[in-house]
This record gives sequence, structure tokens and C-alpha cells, in this order.
Amino acid sequence: MTDTTTDMTEMAQGPAERRPAAEFEAHDQHGGYEASEAAELLTAARLSVDPEVRRAVDSLPGGMRRIARYHFGWEHADGTPAAGHAGKAIRPALVLAAVRALGGEQAMAVRAAAAVELTHNFTLLHDDVMDRDPTRRHRATAWTVFGEADAILAGDALQALAQRLLAEDPHPGAARAAARLAACVVELCAGQHADSTFERRGPGEVTLDECLAMAEAKTGALLGCACALGALYAGAGRSEVEALDGFGREAGLAFQLIDDVIGIWGDPGHTGKPARADLAARKKSLPVVAALASGTRAAADLAELYGRPAPGPESDGDLERIAHAVEAAGGKDWALMQAADRMSRALNQLSRAVPVPEAAGSLLALAEFVTRRTY
Amino acid sequence: MTDTTTDMTEMAQGPAERRPAAEFEAHDQHGGYEASEAAELLTAARLSVDPEVRRAVDSLPGGMRRIARYHFGWEHADGTPAAGHAGKAIRPALVLAAVRALGGEQAMAVRAAAAVELTHNFTLLHDDVMDRDPTRRHRATAWTVFGEADAILAGDALQALAQRLLAEDPHPGAARAAARLAACVVELCAGQHADSTFERRGPGEVTLDECLAMAEAKTGALLGCACALGALYAGAGRSEVEALDGFGREAGLAFQLIDDVIGIWGDPGHTGKPARADLAARKKSLPVVAALASGTRAAADLAELYGRPAPGPESDGDLERIAHAVEAAGGKDWALMQAADRMSRALNQLSRAVPVPEAAGSLLALAEFVTRRTY
Repeated sequence: MTDTTTDMTEMAQGPAERRPAAEFEAHDQHGGYEASEAAELLTAARLSVDPEVRRAVDSLPGGMRRIARYHFGWEHADGTPAAGHAGKAIRPALVLAAVRALGGEQAMAVRAAAAVELTHNFTLLHDDVMDRDPTRRHRATAWTVFGEADAILAGDALQALAQRLLAEDPHPGAARAAARLAACVVELCAGQHADSTFERRGPGEVTLDECLAMAEAKTGALLGCACALGALYAGAGRSEVEALDGFGREAGLAFQLIDDVIGIWGDPGHTGKPARADLAARKKSLPVVAALASGTRAAADLAELYGRPAPGPESDGDLERIAHAVEAAGGKDWALMQAADRMSRALNQLSRAVPVPEAAGSLLALAEFVTRRTY
Repeated sequence: MTDTTTDMTEMAQGPAERRPAAEFEAHDQHGGYEASEAAELLTAARLSVDPEVRRAVDSLPGGMRRIARYHFGWEHADGTPAAGHAGKAIRPALVLAAVRALGGEQAMAVRAAAAVELTHNFTLLHDDVMDRDPTRRHRATAWTVFGEADAILAGDALQALAQRLLAEDPHPGAARAAARLAACVVELCAGQHADSTFERRGPGEVTLDECLAMAEAKTGALLGCACALGALYAGAGRSEVEALDGFGREAGLAFQLIDDVIGIWGDPGHTGKPARADLAARKKSLPVVAALASGTRAAADLAELYGRPAPGPESDGDLERIAHAVEAAGGKDWALMQAADRMSRALNQLSRAVPVPEAAGSLLALAEFVTRRTY
């Protein structure tokens, strides 16, 4: 087993020693250097982007400001201040790290990073309504507290605020960034659309390619866009911008694969979610779809088990049987190999845009961080 | 009774003869010259803006393209072509007329006009979900056909497409237009938010000022924004842009007042809606709120009638009693006077931005058109 932390360290030393993270495997704890570097980058991104995000949110008229402030964790439902948790700031951190990696000035890109964060949160507000999700970041979702209509409106307003930030930004890269972010929103919507249509189809009726394309649109697109915006704000050329977009996309896909593995085999004590919740919901996650497509005997068993929706609460034994079938059909191994392959492609794209390894360090640390979560 | 058509004609002749439309009153049919001029402007706007709107919509991925094409009336629910009715194109027509009025080149502003039309349709898709409206433009609403989630996503995508059009527009006014349109979306959301909170409050618990502010945000803001965008694309200065925004806002408020009058006293044969539908739904429309605030005996009767929600389908007699109470309490007269006053303010703003009356002709014809609907 090769620790990709080593790859990362090597990459920071010189391109000659660089190699793809082909033997990438999820670990049950964060590594040393990169994990703490990533934590610092995330904290710094949160600190630099929050004043801009708060200023934008506080410009909203009363009713919607309250919903948005609740969603970001700054207020309780009754409007009293909360020491909330607005998420990990991965997307703004990617914007800022990408600017730096391409020799741009980070301070100039804070608005762009805030626009990405607002866009991300607009999609969370709407996705929670559509998916009827009751909790987000360990709190009741906005729509369960304020109603569907207000959550939809607050999301709409956050999308508008994101675009307004870029439209009012005098930076020469702002217009291209705005166009790119808008195109990304369309892709995010397409990903969410595909995800919800998959839920209505039977097991075996969703191909692995469709599933990968959905994950790329739903998760990879905005991580790619964040990196691309950083490149645009550094004044990078077209091929660097596209390469950084590719880096973010591939890392995003690796993240989703690992996230799906955690959703089945993760330790509830670490994930904060009930064990095997994705299986109980009959989610067509990537390991499950890969298992179903494997043509194995276990795949046939899995199709049979997954085809009949749970009539009520299932026993741990029932869900364990499904998890075993996914694993026996090769779903877990495929997902981990695929994640490693995606990380390798991500590193490849990154090296095309940022040939100086020292400059790529922060982006690597963040990519490592998102794909190496505790489970 | 003074016909404001006369005002308009006079205004087209010379500023000396101009006077406010203080005696404005709704008519049961369109006037002569201006109505046909408005019809021509709307047709021309639809023709010039539609290719741009269609190109944007057709750039959407499959699932969402279908929903949007259905919403615009270009396709039936099964995807077969429909000779649909995408609305009156009032907002794009205002953008194009405003550009011309300020000496700009109309052809350069087609993208901005399309962006406004896309934004309007994004809000319609979402409003229909939130209000649970079953029909729009004589067809089943998109959410009733494709489900709530897909209607929300299609709306999100249309908002993004609108901003993308402006972000990709090399016109020097495009960035300011994008910022203004984004700010307008926030105002539209605030208007819709206020509207839905009013529905949950009792009759007497919504003040007339709140109600007017809501109507300005929900209806006036986008008409004002359309005119302001036209001014920006004509390279107009700040004061002209603001004056044109004011013109559109006031005309929009006049439109809403007339629309509310039609909603109570309109002829269902003309409006296509059931008679007194707004009263049956206990809508806190402007004439009703004005009547409730009048301090008259009829206001007390009305509060009593409006306070108890209809236990089931009401007889025509019940609804007629409510309509009589609104009228007896002065709600209808107030609304018509207020509409006249708003049109007068609109003309005043317009004359500040466009001192040459000939140049203002198209904007006047459109303002007349929207406030003089058949009922």
C-alpha cells in the first residue's frame, strides 16, 4: 500500500519524482503535514472570505437575510446569534490557492471566492428542499424551519448575490469568471436533475457512465470552477484555466467516490450519519452501480435485494447483507481504484498548469484533504 | 373623464402640452393609435429577442431544456412542438424602447433584453411552485407537469443563463447591467417573500404602505430594471438611468393596481380567470387593503367577511357582497386614483430622462398598454 501523502511530499520536491497516486486508498485518519496544511488553508480561506459573504448576506432585505443567516449558521432560528459552522470553505480555499499557484495576488480574488461560496450555499438550500433533507451541518435545514417557499427564495437571492459580487468587481478577470460560474450553475442543476431521475429508476437501469457523469456535474463542476476562477484571477491563459478546471473536477470525483464508500462502510461514530444510510435509502451511489454492472453472481443478488424497497426499518443484518453483496461484486474495490485513478488524473492536470511543484503545494494539500476523510 | 390616450398623443406633440395622467381611469378596451403602436413594439421585441432566448434555452442539458421549452410554450409536455405563447414580451420591449429613447442602438441591447426575459421567466417558474398555481398562460404550470424539483432547477438554470448572457456580452454597459439585474432579483425575491407572509396575516394586519412596497418590489422592480438596462446600454448617465428605473417602477405599480381592480371587477369573459377569484382566495390585493384601512362602516363589514376563510365554494352572491364592501369602502376608487397618480409620476420621471417627446413615444405607448388592459 502506498500512501499518497508520500506522493504529495515527493511532488513538492520535484517533478522527476512525481508519480500518479495509483495505489491511493482511503485512510482512517488524516496524514501529517498535508492535513495540517489543508486545515490552515481552510481556516485562512474562511477568515478572508467570511467578511465578504457576510456583507453580501447582510445586504438582503429582512426576511431573506434571516433565512440566509440561519443557513450559514450565524443565527439560530429565532434570530439570536449562533457560533455556527458554515462548512469547510473548501471551494473558496481552492479559488485562493489556485490564484497563488498561478502567481496571482490572493487578496484580489476574495470576491470571486465569496461568489463561489454563495453559489455553493444557494445550491445547498435548493437541494435540501428538493431532496427533503431534514438536516445539514448538524442542524435542521432552512426549509424545515422557514418553509419551502422561503428557502427557495433565499437560494435564489444567494445566486443573485454571487453574480452581483462578480459584476461589481473591477478585476479584469471578473466577467469571464461570472460567465464561467453561471455555466457551472447550469451544470450543477443538470447534475441534481440527473440524480433525482436516477432515484426513480430501477437498479440496473442506471449505467456507470451516467452515474459518473452525474457525480462530475453535481460535485466536480463547482470544485473545477473554483480552481478555474482562481486561474482567471491570476490572469492565466486558456489552457491553464482548463487544466485547473480539470484538476478540480477530477479531485471532486475522487472525493465523491470516497464519500460514497464512506456512506456504505463508514463508521457512524466518525461520519455522524446512521450506518449504511445510503443503502437503506437505496441510493444509486457509485460503488452500488459499479457492483450492479459487474456481471457477477453477487450483482444478481444485489439487484434482487436493491430492487425491492425496504418495507420498513430494516435490521442491521439486512443492510449488512446488501453491503456484503456490493463488496463481493467488487463495488468497493472499483470505487477505491477509480478514486485513485481520478486523483492521478487530477495531479496530471495540475502539473500541466503549474509546472513548479512548490507553487502547487496548497492545491495538492486541499485535494488530499477532500479525498482523505475520516471513516 | 379624460382619456390618457390623449395625454400620450399630446406628449408626442410637445412638452408644453404635456400633463399628468391625473384623471386616469381604466377602460374596457384599448385606445387607437398607442395600443396598435404598443402591439407592434411587442411583436417586434418578441421577434428580435426570441432567437437569443431560444439559443440560451437550447444550450441547457436535455432534462432542463425540455422543462424550459415547455414553460416558454414552444413544446408540449411530451416534447412535440407547440405554437405556444411565451407571454407579451413587455420587459424586453421596454429594454429596447429605452435604448432607443436615449439614442442608443437597439440591436446592441438584444442580449440584455433576452437576459431580462429569462430572469422574468425564472421568477415565474419559482413563483408558480411557491404559490401552487396550477395554470400559467392557459396551460398547466411546469411544476404540475414535471414536478416541483425540476421546476425549481429549470428556474435556477434560467437565472444563470440570464447572467451568463450579460457576462459574455462585450458591450461596455454589460457589467453594470448584470449588477443591476442581480440586485433586481433580490428585490423580486423580497417582494415574493412579503406577498407570501401577507397571506398568512389577518385582514387588518397588513398596512397599505407595506402592500404598496410589496407590489413595487414584486412587479415594479423588474419593469424599472428593464428600462434602466436600456438606458445603460444607451450609455446614459446615472441620473437618466435612475429616472428610467423610476418610470418603469411607477408604471409597474400602476399596472398592478389596475390588475388588482380587474381581479375583483373584471369580466371573466375577458380576463380568462374565474370571476372574483382574488376575493375567493382572500388575496390582500391593493383595493382590498385600501378598503380595510378606510375606517368606514363598509371596512368593518369587509374585515368581518374577509376574516373568515371561505368554508367551501362560495356562491356568486357571497363574493359579490365582498366586492360591494370593497367598493363601498372606497377601495376601487382609491386604486384607480392611485394608478393615475403612479402614471403621472411615471411620466414625470420619463420627461426628466427623455426631454425630447418624440423619443419617448415608444416607452409611453408601452406604459399605456400595460396599464390599460381589457376588463
